[in-house]
Amino acid sequence: MALIVQKYGGTSVGDVERIKAVARRCVATQKAGHDVVVVVSAMSGDTNRLLKLVSAITDRPDLREQDVVVATGEQVTIGLLAMAIQAQRKKARSFLGHQVRILTDSAHSKARIVQIDEQRIREALRKHEIVVVAGFQGVDAEGSVTTLGRGGSDTTAVAIAAALKADACEIYTDVTGVYTTDPNVCPAARKLDRITYEEMLELASLGAKVLQIRSVEFAMKYKVPLWVKSSFTDDPGTLVCEEDTKMEEPLVSGIAYDRNEAKISVRGVPDEPGVAARLFGALDEKNVVVDVIVQNPAKDGRTDLTFTVARSDFVTARDTVKKVAKAIKAEGVEADETVAKVSIVGVGMRNHSGVAAKMFQVLAAEGINIQLISTSEIKVSCLIHSKYTELAVRSLHTAFGLDAPAVDLSATSR
Amino acid sequence: MALIVQKYGGTSVGDVERIKAVARRCVATQKAGHDVVVVVSAMSGDTNRLLKLVSAITDRPDLREQDVVVATGEQVTIGLLAMAIQAQRKKARSFLGHQVRILTDSAHSKARIVQIDEQRIREALRKHEIVVVAGFQGVDAEGSVTTLGRGGSDTTAVAIAAALKADACEIYTDVTGVYTTDPNVCPAARKLDRITYEEMLELASLGAKVLQIRSVEFAMKYKVPLWVKSSFTDDPGTLVCEEDTKMEEPLVSGIAYDRNEAKISVRGVPDEPGVAARLFGALDEKNVVVDVIVQNPAKDGRTDLTFTVARSDFVTARDTVKKVAKAIKAEGVEADETVAKVSIVGVGMRNHSGVAAKMFQVLAAEGINIQLISTSEIKVSCLIHSKYTELAVRSLHTAFGLDAPAVDLSATSR
Repeated sequence: MALIVQKYGGTSVGDVERIKAVARRCVATQKAGHDVVVVVSAMSGDTNRLLKLVSAITDRPDLREQDVVVATGEQVTIGLLAMAIQAQRKKARSFLGHQVRILTDSAHSKARIVQIDEQRIREALRKHEIVVVAGFQGVDAEGSVTTLGRGGSDTTAVAIAAALKADACEIYTDVTGVYTTDPNVCPAARKLDRITYEEMLELASLGAKVLQIRSVEFAMKYKVPLWVKSSFTDDPGTLVCEEDTKMEEPLVSGIAYDRNEAKISVRGVPDEPGVAARLFGALDEKNVVVDVIVQNPAKDGRTDLTFTVARSDFVTARDTVKKVAKAIKAEGVEADETVAKVSIVGVGMRNHSGVAAKMFQVLAAEGINIQLISTSEIKVSCLIHSKYTELAVRSLHTAFGLDAPAVDLSATSR
Repeated sequence: MALIVQKYGGTSVGDVERIKAVARRCVATQKAGHDVVVVVSAMSGDTNRLLKLVSAITDRPDLREQDVVVATGEQVTIGLLAMAIQAQRKKARSFLGHQVRILTDSAHSKARIVQIDEQRIREALRKHEIVVVAGFQGVDAEGSVTTLGRGGSDTTAVAIAAALKADACEIYTDVTGVYTTDPNVCPAARKLDRITYEEMLELASLGAKVLQIRSVEFAMKYKVPLWVKSSFTDDPGTLVCEEDTKMEEPLVSGIAYDRNEAKISVRGVPDEPGVAARLFGALDEKNVVVDVIVQNPAKDGRTDLTFTVARSDFVTARDTVKKVAKAIKAEGVEADETVAKVSIVGVGMRNHSGVAAKMFQVLAAEGINIQLISTSEIKVSCLIHSKYTELAVRSLHTAFGLDAPAVDLSATSR
């Protein structure tokens, strides 16, 4: 008997019939002899409906109050799913974030989980109840409702799996697993059977929308075996797990892209200590998360600083940077929203050289100019003009040998 | 400076524009120098939308889970209203039932308030925040979400007013106050300036839908001055308060009717001790609330028992009674759904005789047969065939001098 945490996303609980189907899956898992904890998102479209109400009220919502409103989406689905399970003659019980209790910090709309008290869940499991937990939400030390940001239900599921030391955490979504790249952009994309936490982390941070980044961090930290599966098929999905040294790693496991980027350059920054700190400190104060940062070597006592931010933070970032640039006597600020980040990811890179060079060659061969480069042990990212995104992804996918064989589309390389 | 609790119903917060209008009213009250606590219902239609989802899942909902789902309606409005107040540059803070905390019993879908901890509200008021509380919901000792039943937000408002010893509790609705009877049935109906708690209680229990009964009980018990006002006009509304002995009381203050009744008669019940207890005990077990009960004098060791129940409980009640009737060897059960209860209410009745007789004469003159009679100190109710409801109400309204003068419709008699 295993303890399994399942998470179902918005499309999986998008209407009453789908909620009933999820209930059947939960019941089947329990009948197979397992303890089941289910985490659910809001019905697809519901969170947007609620955010639309908020923006009709005000264009500067108080985030505490916005969280109160948007957290209701998950509250509806847990009640409905618990009833749907009960309608199949199995015991079920729903829990809100504050009932579990999922303690978070007070960063409304993007709170982080601090602690999970799993006692009430264990108690319910002992009574053979299927436990249904609201994803995406928590409660801060003051007792206010918090939410974890887009995709936060993944994190809820993994955090609960970690707290319960669950045998597996299954993330049900509308795709059959993790792909070598986005199949919508590259028809030759293949589903992966396995992928390491680190690769998944890079893919997630680079814009593959399968899992929320923090959920992968949690899974890696607590070694939670994480399955990405489709709620509409019986495909075994993709297992996200620790690196298996017995297997030969492919050089590159996946190609990611992210169009949600914007680039800001500050030209002619005086090359003095504290200048960068002042600039990025100001952005931090505005809660703008900076992604890639590149600083050119100084020349004549001045340097250029270029960095990227999420496109949603673009206006705030640009205005903030303009103010600071003036104060620190920089020469100018350039801002560009027509950029995209394309990345190759693979733990195999650790032991191979020349991967980055090959990437640059592939892009150059297509006439794609590289605006910024950023690397880590297991990935290389290039910022390019957004209009080349699809072309870059497809070329890299082919060049790194990821294309699916022409005949058997279900085969995988590992 | 006064402390005022305002409650806005579903139509008053029915869309974003109306929520903004409510925010303006709250802010105006605070600007007039008062501390303001606002209780809100769900946006009109929202609770029904949620109940529809529930019934699409199952026709036998677990009431704990149903409460989880329907409580979200009020959660949305408190967040939106708090933001709408903030958009008018005033501080506001929302509170859910469990955050206040409004402790109830565990009778899901019709829970009763046991205790209110008003400390967090007081703390927020000290910070000059307008406090926005979710109506209709509470939390039981286990920490589960509970709801108070239809119209429960009225009770939330009055209970909070009582706990805070507020100077007034204002119930904003879509009518301008309490009327001598339903203006839809009787065009001559007049708005009352004042009405006593006891009269309001009788009117509310008799089917006038202006206020939830328990809210009036709470107001009477804790002597909370209760205003019924329209959120769409500046009409002063109706004050529900203690009896003012200096004023001359009219004989009858209002006429109420209730079509939500069903009649059940058990004929030939053996006239033995314990028989009635067995019958009504069985109904109580099924949570059927019995309204009027009449027992005929026994004849030949047998008697007839007739009583009324809410029409929603009709089938349960009839089936239960049939089983018990068989067990106690009664002769038969008759059930009738085509009944209505028409009542006259007035504290003035205490000191006058002949009121009931006059009522019977009026009904007789219209050829309306009386099926059951029930009286209290300040009301007389008659059960009649439901097809005569409007006729009975209009005739009684005229006969007891309640009709508005032909010219000035806004004048009142007290």
